[in-house]
Amino acid sequence: MESSRIRFGIIGCATIARKVSRAILLSSNATISAVASRSLANAQHFLSANGLPASVRAHGSYEAMVDDASVDAVYVPLPTGLHVRWAVAAAERGKHVLLEKPAAACLSDLDRILEACRSNGVQFMDGSMWLHHPRTERMKEILAAHDFGPLKMIHCSSTFSATPNFLQNNIRVKHDLDSLRALGDLGWYCVGAILWAVDDQLPDTVTALPSLHLNQSGVILACAAAFHWTDHDMIATFHCSFLSNFSMDLSVHGTNASLQVKDLAIPYQESSATFDFTCGAKFADLHIGWSRKPEEVVVQTDLPQEALMIEEFSRIVGNIKNSNCRPDSKWPEVTRKTQMMVDAVKSSIELGFTPVDL
Amino acid sequence: MESSRIRFGIIGCATIARKVSRAILLSSNATISAVASRSLANAQHFLSANGLPASVRAHGSYEAMVDDASVDAVYVPLPTGLHVRWAVAAAERGKHVLLEKPAAACLSDLDRILEACRSNGVQFMDGSMWLHHPRTERMKEILAAHDFGPLKMIHCSSTFSATPNFLQNNIRVKHDLDSLRALGDLGWYCVGAILWAVDDQLPDTVTALPSLHLNQSGVILACAAAFHWTDHDMIATFHCSFLSNFSMDLSVHGTNASLQVKDLAIPYQESSATFDFTCGAKFADLHIGWSRKPEEVVVQTDLPQEALMIEEFSRIVGNIKNSNCRPDSKWPEVTRKTQMMVDAVKSSIELGFTPVDL
Repeated sequence: MESSRIRFGIIGCATIARKVSRAILLSSNATISAVASRSLANAQHFLSANGLPASVRAHGSYEAMVDDASVDAVYVPLPTGLHVRWAVAAAERGKHVLLEKPAAACLSDLDRILEACRSNGVQFMDGSMWLHHPRTERMKEILAAHDFGPLKMIHCSSTFSATPNFLQNNIRVKHDLDSLRALGDLGWYCVGAILWAVDDQLPDTVTALPSLHLNQSGVILACAAAFHWTDHDMIATFHCSFLSNFSMDLSVHGTNASLQVKDLAIPYQESSATFDFTCGAKFADLHIGWSRKPEEVVVQTDLPQEALMIEEFSRIVGNIKNSNCRPDSKWPEVTRKTQMMVDAVKSSIELGFTPVDL
Repeated sequence: MESSRIRFGIIGCATIARKVSRAILLSSNATISAVASRSLANAQHFLSANGLPASVRAHGSYEAMVDDASVDAVYVPLPTGLHVRWAVAAAERGKHVLLEKPAAACLSDLDRILEACRSNGVQFMDGSMWLHHPRTERMKEILAAHDFGPLKMIHCSSTFSATPNFLQNNIRVKHDLDSLRALGDLGWYCVGAILWAVDDQLPDTVTALPSLHLNQSGVILACAAAFHWTDHDMIATFHCSFLSNFSMDLSVHGTNASLQVKDLAIPYQESSATFDFTCGAKFADLHIGWSRKPEEVVVQTDLPQEALMIEEFSRIVGNIKNSNCRPDSKWPEVTRKTQMMVDAVKSSIELGFTPVDL
């Protein structure tokens, strides 16, 4: 069993790598083979600080990682601006790629990564961990049920109130490493959630809203946008911001039902998550109340969503490695559509908040 | 005590008049003096169908009501297109005016009403009943508290899924009687809620979103818009629709706290209402959860919000009638700003969804 585990190499010791390395160790079908940082000392420190097994190798360069023949797959939590170089390098050496979000600075960059994965027959997936939570699956069952009715309105927010220190120094607000900033970092969740709710159907138009906040370097600290699906009379809006209180709200309204969750990307608690659902509510006589209140649906999970993501990725990689299966096209397609929508928001901002057709 | 009650005349027997006549009877400082319809039989039917006291007079025309010297104030639930004529007529005969929302088809119409009230020294108030619920006051205390932080994002929706019969025949989708439709009917709540949250400060720009749904007569069945306050980096969005499941959501996010309510205009239950509030939440270590979940705040009320509205209106009218006080300027100002924002949404729609400055 141990020998069949997918062997991960972690490229970069970002904060989020701590969570994902824990998830790899919790998973049933993956293991950590090596960790790479820009210096050997950094990598060794990451191993000891996170209590990783003595068998995990430390590499003092990313190059050493992509050359490590004992690694099946890389997890890449590097700054977005470094994604093309290292994801492509890993794919070209036959390594499957689990890439932290936002996947790329723009669609053309992402396409270089996806093409490298495709031509080398390796799996690609981005790190949208919430898609793997059983709550997400349960919500999708409800959205797809006949009595929900066609979707009409979606609203999503992903925000946090950054400290002055973050706004000065964090890598996510430095222009050279990630040109998308709040839009890539937080907006990726919103766009991904909206796309997920509509079964990955791209909107017809994307319109950024005139509420953009840039810092002195022109970096996006807050923005908002609306998506419109013409044939379905469906609208979605989102807000993302480094300047507002923690929120991860998603509301989805059909013609007959509504679903709401407030902790979409990171549930309040790891082992249990909830959402609110209501269907077929009407006003009471005289409109002095409602016929029913939303119900809270509780979904338990034995494993954290990041471990479930690792298991799904490793299951596909195992099928490729051991059974000559082809890579699964669903995951890169979802990433690509998310990137297209994020890019369109950015274009609409650059065009003065005019609608952009997709 | 009975003799000091404000004597209401109800002009028009719309469905909502049933709820408000009940509210007048529940109030401590008002009474129903007369009911007018376009025919005497209609007015008499309303009296008996709603169990009103035998002392209530029935009028077979609106003219008879505005001429009724025993009426202090009129409640006007007529279609919006009739508001100017009958609200002005009532004010000119010295009657205080409680006018159902939307107040007018446009700002110039509203200004004729407000000017008639001003020049005749009578009180004006629109029928936004939710503003009088004690939950609303409790939410405002929280929004105004120092630790909420400056407001950054607001989202509001007001929707219901109309039946085919409604969409064919209801007065709210006939163009000659109300040109605002979903925007006036449901959008009024959204705009009012947003304005309330920001302490009645008008936004700098109003932008309708390209997700307009018109019926064959060009009547608005669904629309959405964004408001932007430049100096405060604050954005608000709303959706209103006759084509989506029941919703009355309001989310308000500051830099340090969030408040959410799902049944804003009509609470699920009449005697008790809730909202969710969270302040100062952070991610747990490793970002595998949150430091706290939102808490549910419960607010009880002895009287329905409509009765509290009647009591507030009648209190002011009583002060004018008995103590020579001047009319309260707050209520007409709130109505006027709401109308300005609604009108700006309509203008933005007509201008092809371009931003409109206020």
